[in-house]
Amino acid sequence: MNDPSSSEVHTAEERHRERMQRKKELVDRKIARATIERGVLVVNTGNGKGKSSSGFGMLARSLGHGFHCGVVQFIKGSFSTGEEAFFRRFPDDVDYHVMGEGYTWETQDKARDIQAAQAAWQVAATMLADARYDFVLLDELNIALVKGYLEVAVVGAALAARPPQQHVVITGRGAPEALLEQADTVTEMRVVKHAFQAGIRAQKGIEL
Amino acid sequence: MNDPSSSEVHTAEERHRERMQRKKELVDRKIARATIERGVLVVNTGNGKGKSSSGFGMLARSLGHGFHCGVVQFIKGSFSTGEEAFFRRFPDDVDYHVMGEGYTWETQDKARDIQAAQAAWQVAATMLADARYDFVLLDELNIALVKGYLEVAVVGAALAARPPQQHVVITGRGAPEALLEQADTVTEMRVVKHAFQAGIRAQKGIEL
Repeated sequence: MNDPSSSEVHTAEERHRERMQRKKELVDRKIARATIERGVLVVNTGNGKGKSSSGFGMLARSLGHGFHCGVVQFIKGSFSTGEEAFFRRFPDDVDYHVMGEGYTWETQDKARDIQAAQAAWQVAATMLADARYDFVLLDELNIALVKGYLEVAVVGAALAARPPQQHVVITGRGAPEALLEQADTVTEMRVVKHAFQAGIRAQKGIEL
Repeated sequence: MNDPSSSEVHTAEERHRERMQRKKELVDRKIARATIERGVLVVNTGNGKGKSSSGFGMLARSLGHGFHCGVVQFIKGSFSTGEEAFFRRFPDDVDYHVMGEGYTWETQDKARDIQAAQAAWQVAATMLADARYDFVLLDELNIALVKGYLEVAVVGAALAARPPQQHVVITGRGAPEALLEQADTVTEMRVVKHAFQAGIRAQKGIEL
């Protein structure tokens, strides 16, 4: 070629390829070392958005893989009606339970909140003991743990005794330390900015 | 009642109710102040898990509300086949485009990566200009911005000019500052613990 810069361009491309080649080897070695195959326990916590919606995204992904799934919502949030409407369309693949009564400042009745949390846990415990569930989402379970409506040790024991291939995702702010230790993957969703703070009204479709 | 403790119990319940009543008033006042109704721009960034799956959860929620949705995946991740399989079941409601070629260390070809990012952006820009899309998910767009495959100013202008009721979710680590400023809601997903680090192999259903 007569273009004088073509060898330099080629060199830059070569450098990129070589760098990416080294990176691929590194990633492939890590993948080769990751050899334990079993169900994982994922915890999404923190004060930011996306804890529950990430759990529902993993539910969608699990359904895409043909998994049989269970969902227990420990708090019936006023913004969560969209997920419920959507995932109830697949009753053969998802057992969907909304057990909570709304946030504590909505119910204003602690005894009823405790009762609702314990009833929700009964359903969750049944799923965690049943190998037919490949994937279980326990949405806002952490809230019930933080408030002491459920015992962390009881929940931890049920998680430890679950079928080895079963994946579990637990969401909610304030996940207790013992649960974080037991989890395989923990993500903290941190608020950087929130539309609600700017006076934007919560709208259907998006949990603001 | 003869139970001597019943008045105390009643008092504790009363206190809980009063505290929750005050909290409810506070929350209700905040809701009343949030009066702007328009589509929101949500950005999920950070090094932790859940950025994409939260976007897919919001997609599920949007479908539950009967929204017409668009998805552009800027990077074809090897773990994202579950979402794709699932959401492609609803071709009337979701226009689903997988435009990317895999991570840079997989393709090892920068020119092809740039071309793929720009082709993906053409599809995304068409959605952002079309009021028939109520919800648009631009998955891993941030990666293309960070690498300079797309111009932040071009993306920002298309977002600013989009139909006022349209919701947009953008995911990917390293979201540029200008995008964070433009966004209504920003969440940083922070890694606390990662199963892959513990040698657990990525499995279908869960993105580890």
